[in-house]
Formats: sequence, C-alpha cells, structure tokens
Amino acid sequence: MPSAVRTGLRRPERPAINPLRLLLFGRPIPTEHQEHTKLPKIVALPVFASDAISSVAYATQQIILVLAAAGLWTSEHKELYSRLTLNVTAAIILLLAIVVVSYWQVIFAFPGGGGSYIVTRTSLGINFGLVAGAALLIDYVLTVAVSIAAGVQNLLATPLLNRFSDHTVEVCLLFIVGLTLANLRGLKESGTVFAIPTYLFVTMASTMILLGAFGPFIGWEIHADAVNREMPEFARRPPLDLAGYGIVLLVLKAFANGCAAMTGTEAISDTVPAFREPVSRNAGITLIWMAAILAFLFMGISYLSANLHIVYWEVGHSRAMPVIDQLSAAVFGKTGSPFRVGLYYVMQFSTTIILVLAANTSFAGFPTLASIMSRDRLLPRQLANRGDKLVYSNGIVLLGLAAALLVVAFRGSVEGLIPLYAVGVFTAFTLSQGGMCKRWLTQRGPRWRVKFAINFVGTCATAIVLTIIAVEKGPEGAWIVLFVGAALVWLFRGINRHYERCRRDLSIINFKPDTSDITNTVLLLVPTLHRGIFPALQYARSLSPDCRAIHVEDNPDDTPRLVREWDEYVGDEIPLVILPSPYRSLIGPLLTYLNEVRRERDDHIVTVIVPEFDPGKWYHAALHNANGFLVKHYLGHLPGVIVSNFRYHPNRMRTENGSANNGN
Amino acid sequence: MPSAVRTGLRRPERPAINPLRLLLFGRPIPTEHQEHTKLPKIVALPVFASDAISSVAYATQQIILVLAAAGLWTSEHKELYSRLTLNVTAAIILLLAIVVVSYWQVIFAFPGGGGSYIVTRTSLGINFGLVAGAALLIDYVLTVAVSIAAGVQNLLATPLLNRFSDHTVEVCLLFIVGLTLANLRGLKESGTVFAIPTYLFVTMASTMILLGAFGPFIGWEIHADAVNREMPEFARRPPLDLAGYGIVLLVLKAFANGCAAMTGTEAISDTVPAFREPVSRNAGITLIWMAAILAFLFMGISYLSANLHIVYWEVGHSRAMPVIDQLSAAVFGKTGSPFRVGLYYVMQFSTTIILVLAANTSFAGFPTLASIMSRDRLLPRQLANRGDKLVYSNGIVLLGLAAALLVVAFRGSVEGLIPLYAVGVFTAFTLSQGGMCKRWLTQRGPRWRVKFAINFVGTCATAIVLTIIAVEKGPEGAWIVLFVGAALVWLFRGINRHYERCRRDLSIINFKPDTSDITNTVLLLVPTLHRGIFPALQYARSLSPDCRAIHVEDNPDDTPRLVREWDEYVGDEIPLVILPSPYRSLIGPLLTYLNEVRRERDDHIVTVIVPEFDPGKWYHAALHNANGFLVKHYLGHLPGVIVSNFRYHPNRMRTENGSANNGN
Repeated sequence: MPSAVRTGLRRPERPAINPLRLLLFGRPIPTEHQEHTKLPKIVALPVFASDAISSVAYATQQIILVLAAAGLWTSEHKELYSRLTLNVTAAIILLLAIVVVSYWQVIFAFPGGGGSYIVTRTSLGINFGLVAGAALLIDYVLTVAVSIAAGVQNLLATPLLNRFSDHTVEVCLLFIVGLTLANLRGLKESGTVFAIPTYLFVTMASTMILLGAFGPFIGWEIHADAVNREMPEFARRPPLDLAGYGIVLLVLKAFANGCAAMTGTEAISDTVPAFREPVSRNAGITLIWMAAILAFLFMGISYLSANLHIVYWEVGHSRAMPVIDQLSAAVFGKTGSPFRVGLYYVMQFSTTIILVLAANTSFAGFPTLASIMSRDRLLPRQLANRGDKLVYSNGIVLLGLAAALLVVAFRGSVEGLIPLYAVGVFTAFTLSQGGMCKRWLTQRGPRWRVKFAINFVGTCATAIVLTIIAVEKGPEGAWIVLFVGAALVWLFRGINRHYERCRRDLSIINFKPDTSDITNTVLLLVPTLHRGIFPALQYARSLSPDCRAIHVEDNPDDTPRLVREWDEYVGDEIPLVILPSPYRSLIGPLLTYLNEVRRERDDHIVTVIVPEFDPGKWYHAALHNANGFLVKHYLGHLPGVIVSNFRYHPNRMRTENGSANNGN
Repeated sequence: MPSAVRTGLRRPERPAINPLRLLLFGRPIPTEHQEHTKLPKIVALPVFASDAISSVAYATQQIILVLAAAGLWTSEHKELYSRLTLNVTAAIILLLAIVVVSYWQVIFAFPGGGGSYIVTRTSLGINFGLVAGAALLIDYVLTVAVSIAAGVQNLLATPLLNRFSDHTVEVCLLFIVGLTLANLRGLKESGTVFAIPTYLFVTMASTMILLGAFGPFIGWEIHADAVNREMPEFARRPPLDLAGYGIVLLVLKAFANGCAAMTGTEAISDTVPAFREPVSRNAGITLIWMAAILAFLFMGISYLSANLHIVYWEVGHSRAMPVIDQLSAAVFGKTGSPFRVGLYYVMQFSTTIILVLAANTSFAGFPTLASIMSRDRLLPRQLANRGDKLVYSNGIVLLGLAAALLVVAFRGSVEGLIPLYAVGVFTAFTLSQGGMCKRWLTQRGPRWRVKFAINFVGTCATAIVLTIIAVEKGPEGAWIVLFVGAALVWLFRGINRHYERCRRDLSIINFKPDTSDITNTVLLLVPTLHRGIFPALQYARSLSPDCRAIHVEDNPDDTPRLVREWDEYVGDEIPLVILPSPYRSLIGPLLTYLNEVRRERDDHIVTVIVPEFDPGKWYHAALHNANGFLVKHYLGHLPGVIVSNFRYHPNRMRTENGSANNGN
C-alpha cells in the first residue's frame, strides 16, 4: 500500500475571501477553467495591433518637436519643414516595411509564437536571449508609461478636462492603477472590448486625414487658425546652421525620434497560436493589414501636420497642445457647431482609449514573458505563480509599479519617456532578426538564401537604426535603458546561478537520507509568570523531556518575585534559568546561552518557544512587544535552532482554564 | 533547592553590533551606568531655559504679522502700530509674571518634579491628567517643529545660505533627523553644549537691543533702510476698520499670536530634582532669572521693531525676511565692514543654534513623559523600553517622525504652525494651575490662602488666554490640536482598558494551572521532496508519534512523482496526505484539513511545521516563497495550532548530510 493518501475532501471549500478583496478582484477561478481562445483575423487585428497603431498618436509629434526646436517653426522655413517631415515619415515607413517582411518570416518559422526572447534564445543562445529578455521587459514597462502619458496628454487637452492639466501625473497613476486592478481581476482580452475602440480610432483618424486633405474641395471648412504656429519666446533656441552637415544631424535626430512609431510591430509574431488555422497564414495577413493601417495613418497625420505647419514644443512643464489635438481641432473643431465639436471629442476620446488599450497589451505580455523567464530560472519563481484569477498576479503588480515609477520620475512627459523607448524596441528587433539569419544559415531549408537575405536586410536596417538612436538619444535618457538593461542581464545571471545551486544542493538523486532519531532541547522564554505561560509549558513538556524555562533579566528587581512564583506554581519539574542582561538586550544573553546548550551535545536540535500575545484585533499588536519576531529574526537562522511561537489569548485563557478546572 | 538557577555567565558578552548601527548610534551602555547629574544654577539655566528664551526669536514677529496684515504697515499708522506692538508685548510679559509666580509655587510643592501631567493627575484626577498629557505630548512635537522651522528660517535668510531658501522643508528635515540620531546615540545634556550657545544668544540679542536703542548716541550707525517697510502689492488686504470693536479684536488676535513667547516656561518646574540642593530654592531662582531674561529680550526686540517700523508678512510660500534677521541686518549689517557683517552672522547663527537646542529639549521631555504615561498603562509599553544607550529610543523616534510630518504638512512655515502651538501650552498651564488650586483647598497648609490666591489668579489668567487663543486661532488651525488632543485622550483610555483587561485575564492570583499531559499532532508541509525535507522529517518525528506529511497540490501533474519518491525515500512510516487545491491556494485546503484534524480529538495541539529555505543572504529571500509567513499569518492565530518554521540551507544540507553519512 502506498503511504500517500488522497484526503477525502471531494468538494473542497471555496477559499474564504474578505469583502475588500472580493470587491477589488472578484471571485477566484479554479485551475480547470483555463481556456484557449482562437481569434478570427478581424478580432485579432484590434487585439494585437492596438499597440502598434496607437503609436501614430505620438510619432509625428516626435518628428515635429525636433524640427521646430531647430528653428524650422518660422514661416520662412515652411517648405523645408514640410519636406523634412514627409521624408522622415516616409523613411520610417520604409523601415517598417522591411521589419514587417522580416517578421512575416518569423511568423512562419515559429508558428508556436516567436517573441524576440524565444527566437533569440533558440537561435543565438542564452546570452543574447538574456539581452533580448531585458530589452523586452523594459519595453513593456515603457509601453505602459508612454501610452498612458500620451493618452492622458490628449485627454487633458480637451476643453472639457483641461482644468485637470496640472494633475497629469495623478491622472496617469489613476489609469495605471485601474489597468493593474482590471488585469488582476483577470480582464478577458475579449474581442469586442478591443475591436470597437480600435476600429473607431482607425475610422476617426482616417476621416480626419481625408477631411483634412480633401475637405476644402467638398466645402468642409478647416479651422487653420486653431493650430499652434508660434514658438513662445521662452522656448526659442538659436536656430541650427542647416548648411551641410547640420541638416544631416537634424534628419537623423528626427528619424530617431520618429522611430517611436515602430513600437508594437512584433506583437503579432509573439502570439501566432492565438490565430485560427492556418495560424501562420492568418497571422501574416493580419500583420500586413496592421502595417498598412499604421503606414496610412502615420503618413496622413504627418501630411496634415506639414500642410497646416503645426508647431509643437515642450520646455520643462510647459507644453504645446498635442499634435493630434491640434489636428482634430482644425479639421473637426473645439468650438462651433455641436456636430463638429462632437466629432472632435469622439476623435480625442478614441485616441485616449486606443492608447490605454495599447498599455493594456503590456499587461498581457509582460507577465507572460516574466513567467517564461521565471520558469527558465532567470527571474524569481513567484513570477510564475498564477493568482486567484489564473493570471500571473505578481508580474502584473510589478509592471504596474515600474510604470508608475517611470511616470512619476518623468512627470508624465511623453517627450521625456520616448528617448528611453526606442532603444529597447530596436535592440529586440535586431536580435530577433539576427537570430533568424543564424537560423537560416544553420537549417538551410528550401529557398533559404532568399529568406536569409530578407532577414539580413532587416538585421542591418534595425542595427543601423539602433546605432542612430543610441547615439542621438543616448544623452537624452537612452543611457538609462542601457544601464538598466545591463543591470537586468547581470540580475538574470545571478538569479540563475542561485537557483541552479539550490537545485544541485537539494537534489535527492543518489541521496541516502539520515533517519536516525534526534534529541530535542526545548527552551521556553518566560518574561513574567502569567496564565498564558501554563499552556505553553504543557506544550513544551509534550515536545521533549529536556525542557527548560528561560528568563532574560531585563530588570533585576523583578527576578525574586518570578523565582518565588515559579516555585509556587511550577516547582522543580521544569528548571528556570535566569540570564542576566546588563545591556537590556533580549537577544544577546539568549544567543550566549543557546551556544552553550548546543555545545552540551552535538546531535540535537534546540527548539526555542516564544510565548506571544495573540492580539485578537490587529491594532492591539501595537500594544505588545514583538519578541517573537525578534527572536526568530536573530536566532532562527542558526543551524539546529527552531524558533516557534506559542500564541496565547487572554480571553481564551480564562475560558480554557475554567473548563480545565471543571474537569479536575 | 529552588528550581531557579542563575546561569554562570559572569562576564556576559557585549552584544555584537553591525558596523552601520555602531556608526550611527555608538556602543551600547550597560544599565548600571545610569547616572543622575546635579546641575548648578549657571548651567541649569541654559539647559532648561533655552526653550523659553528661544521663543523671543519668533514672538515679536507673530505680533507684527497680525498688525501689518490689518493695514498698520503704512506710514500714517506708524504711531498706532508702535503703541500696539509695545502694549501687547507688555501684556504678555505681565501674563508671564503671573505664570512664573504660579510655577514658583509648583516648584516648592513638587520638589520631585511637577510636570503638568503629574500635577494634574495628582490633584484633579486621571481624567484631567489625560488631557494634560495629551496637551503636553502635542506641545513637545510642536516645540520641535516650530523651533526648527524658525531656526531654519533665520539660517536661510542669511546671504550666505539664501540660495537654499527654496529647500526650507528639506533643511528642516535634515535638522530633525540629526537631532533624532544624536538623541538615539544618548546625547548628554552636558552643560557646556547648552551653556555656550544660550549665553552667546542672550549676549548677542542684548547687544543688538542696546546698540539698536542707544547706538546712535555713541555714533553707531543703524542701517534703517535694511528693514522691510513695504507690504508687497499681492499681500495687501483691505485695512480693518479700527474704530471701536475692530481694534479690540485686533489686539486680542495679536495677543493670542504673541503668546507663543510663553512656551517652555514650565520646563524648570518639570525637572526640579536636577538642581543642586536646596533643589526648590535653586530651581525657583533659576526660574526668575529665566523670566527676567525672556522679558527683557522680548520687550527689547518689540521695541526695536516698533521703532524701526518693521513689516512682516507671509502669503502662501512667499515670506518677508524674519524679524530677527531684519533687526540684525539693521543694527549689525548684512553688508559693509567685515566686523559688522561678522556680528550679523554670529547673531543669526546663535539664533539658529538656540532654536535647535530648544527643539532638543523636547527630545528629552517627550520620551520621558511618554515613558511615564506608558508605565501608567496609557501608552504602548514599548515606549518605556530603554534602548542600547539607556534612552527611550521608541519615544525619540516617535517624536522625530511626528515633528517631521508636521514640518512637511506645513511646508516649514512658522506662521502655519504657531496657531497649533499655543492651545496646547495654555491647556497645560491652566490644568496645572487649576490642580494647584485644588491642592491648596484640600491640603490647607500654612498660608494656604495666599498660595491659593496666587494659583487662582494664574488659573484664571491662563484660562482666559486659552479661551482667547481657541477663539482667535481656532479657524486657523488650532482646531487640529483640539481634534488630535481629543483623539489622544480617547486612545489613552482604549489602551488603558486593553492593558487592564490583559492584566486581569493573565493574573495568576487564585489560579490553578492545568498540568495534565497533552497530545500533539505534527503536520509537516512537503511541497516537493528535496534534501531539506529529511532533517525536517527527523525533527517532526522527534516531536510526536502522530506525525503526518501534508502536500497541498498546486499542480496535480507533479503529484505522481512526489508519491513515487515518497515511497522510495521515506516509506510508510510517515503518511503523506495529498490535499487537492483547485484554486491554487495553499491556505484554503490546509485550513479545511486542520479543522478536520482538530475534530479527531479535543484535548490536543496541532503543530504545523513549514520547511523554509534559509536565504543565507537577505536578498536571496526575494527568490523564494514566503509560505512560512503566510501559514503563520493565516493559521497561527487558531486556538491550539502552533506554526513552526524549519529552516534548511542548501549548502549546509550537503555538509551535514556528508558527516551524517560518514557516521553510518
């Protein structure tokens, strides 16, 4: 008969939950309810592309910011400003095309899902995998911070909510807390929740672009005066010398800044198995759709901005209205007919919502990646625990905290966060493309030369862009990401080393357990003699025949009374040991005595029992000492010493003793 | 033979201290080193009077603030302004004289030290005692906050440090942290440390007053243009109508504000035993000296301010230079000859230092009062513990935290804190004087009628002033003190009730302890089978013959392997109980099973042993679960359940096992 018995709890109790927890997180979900949904393309597109598409809400603004600061905001530079905006946008779209074709191949090569971490680890080995993992984790955090900051910037730019614009950081934190709680509750990535706002945003933004471009021909008036064309005095800087080399630097800087548009492109290749069969084909088609929509919106918004000669600037806390707000005000209208004002608000709210959804995709991606890396023993194992709602709760909380920290540190500024963003994104791109190149070289399947060429172009393009970004944005904050990334890689290695050592040391392979009997010396701490001590004494005697009471003498004046009472109530059966404590410390004398006891014999264990008042109500704990905690903290880690708390409760003492007396 | 044995540790080890702790707090002091110094009057004066004397640094400013805000800052009101300043100052000095005579009697009636709490509790009963205790505790905190804020205001007003004036709060916190650490180190209230700056301040302030008043006659030039005579546009308010009733209100308001000068007057009567014999006489004489110095400096500063027609204002964060700084700049000089600038800096620095010393007196008073009230079972008993350095460490930390909180909440504004200050001071005055009246009525010693009359005048005067202050300053913030005071009294009562109940319930008077044997069921949690489990099993078996291993099934896929390994390595001796956990919770199934086990028998105890990884390095703890803590938190409070952690250490496992194997 095997010794294992499965207990007869057929219908295990639902865990009792306190009301606050229930309200915040809802009922727990049993493990068996785990499900795997397969999404049709029309639903998968908004679910996985919201991150990428939402980047158009800040990408053009990033380009304009650089050009305006260089002095191109004045009307005599209008033409150069317009040409540079459109060319830089076109260059980024070209880069997007290269990356998309590369990822097309990833999707077919990894139908099980080829996130950069997995592709890199599989193809380039664990060391590059760690770099990719670090880059991705950082980017998930930045996706939340940047998307929420941009969404809140647009939201608070509307006349309706403008009065809260001094509280950008607080509103951002509100959104982050909301997303964290929603995801801890096990928010379903249900198609509808994503589909409606994403398609609404695409429709509204397309309408805005088309009306902005062709409206005048059909009699739709553009409020060209609603946009900002002036750089305020305090924001002006001496204009750059644009002759020769200067313009190259300017274009590179604008390009590096605009590359924020590329974030989120890899999302579909991470989640191929979520598509319907044939998964790779469907995922690939969705990827192309996504890229097309992104390119159209990005180019359209850049075109309108160039055409209207919008100026964006940011100095310290003072910022221009976001570009999307300015365009929306010009094409629809902040004032005037209710219909046009209504369209303006729909546009602005849908911008905010798609940005919040983009942040939400990180709340799915980050905990999943963290749990994969945790199972690879690179992150603390708690990150692989599923919480009440079957989600990786610890990862969700960690992401929320990190994003909140970033938003506070950068005071909710999109422009401050963007330089940090692109480094990680392009590191992951480059490594994942490089991994694909290695793969083709090794596997050499049919038409491997073409496939290699495509990924090689992708690798080179993204590596060059990564270099540009690191050089151009390094001083502005990208160095933080490089530093944090390096620290993360170092941390992964340390964690891995620790877990591997534990596993080796604890392994039972070829292990002969020691099953000899051990002796146990029980020490019961007795500060004063009160009713709570007696049950503790009963318990102590039940554990071992060698049982001693220990009194650490805080105040020598109290000792005679204790000795007298001990003689009267307990007697000789259990000896009372008095330890003088000239420095009024509990731990010092106890430690000295413990070492003495351990020297008496070398084959035994010492159990220290600390009687502890059970506060009953949590706030009563503040009224009693924390000796149990202290003893455990200082002595519990000694080899062969077990610290155990015996809790007594005054009320219960009375009744327990009453019944015991009746029994006699 | 008594069962108590005093252990043979004749030379107890000095507690080991970590280097950071040593650096911050120094070496611990044994209890026997406690000492009681007796101070001569010339040293006692600076030690106990720095608090009272330092009030002149902000008292005049408080009067001027009210008068200027009422519109008296304009030159046509110069005469009225001057008259009111001097009259209000004189009225406060008269009140001071009344209070000092009353305290003279306290000193002789309570030669053992008559703090308001003790006088009130002894004479008027515990209920009034609680109110006095609350008022005093609040005032100690406010003394720290106000003194530090005023000291830093003067310090940062000097041209040398003016550049830090945007960081008032941070500098205040620096001082509070410094004082807290110094007092935790067991700062000696050594005479010299107090004497030099106090006498220096008195000398400098007297010199300033005399030079300011008589300098012109001996050819000392006053820089009358260095003071501030203009109220800035944004700070102006419509002038009050001063006809009839208006001026009465104004005077009352100025009087209530200026009463901040009275703080600290009771300090000497609290600490009579610290004086040389005859204690009461010496303390009384010191009290008179202190009052004389205080009165002279206060009147002198008010006279100079009125004479130079200084204006002080404060609106939001923007403040005028403090009055002491303005006077010092006028009489000595911020610019000009190095000698005069030197005098200016000595004056300003000695002002800051005496204010810091005043704050420091609270660090002696607050923890002592808290420890007395703690021994009276009105505050948590931890406040009566002496730390390594024989000081009441917990009280010191509590005071530092509370003062820091106040400074942050009021952004380091003296004017913001002052309204809170006087309420508590005068509550304590009134109660202590009232207590003395009651005492004379009850005891009726020689000349009791005269003594009663003196304290009765004192009671009435302080009670009237208390009413004025409560009415005038109530809306400005004094209500906070009334509210916190009431909350404290309520808290004292609750704490007292709790301790009294505990004492009753735990008392062993007429108690017959139950000494019957108990049985113990030991449950050992086994998440997986690894080397750390085997010593835990040995230990569990040593505790009781009824010993069971419990596996809470987080992932059912792992169970077969565990059962197989259990059969192979442990066998039937100890049964393995598998508890299914559909919600992935550790606690739920454990709780269900525990209740089952407790129903098996009703006379026994269940010991739950949680094997816990011993992190070795503290940061390794983050890499392992905290199940020991969770189990203890959720199950440890159940009656008859003891939760015990068995720590294992991978490295140690290997060596221990090695030696055990050698033994076989």
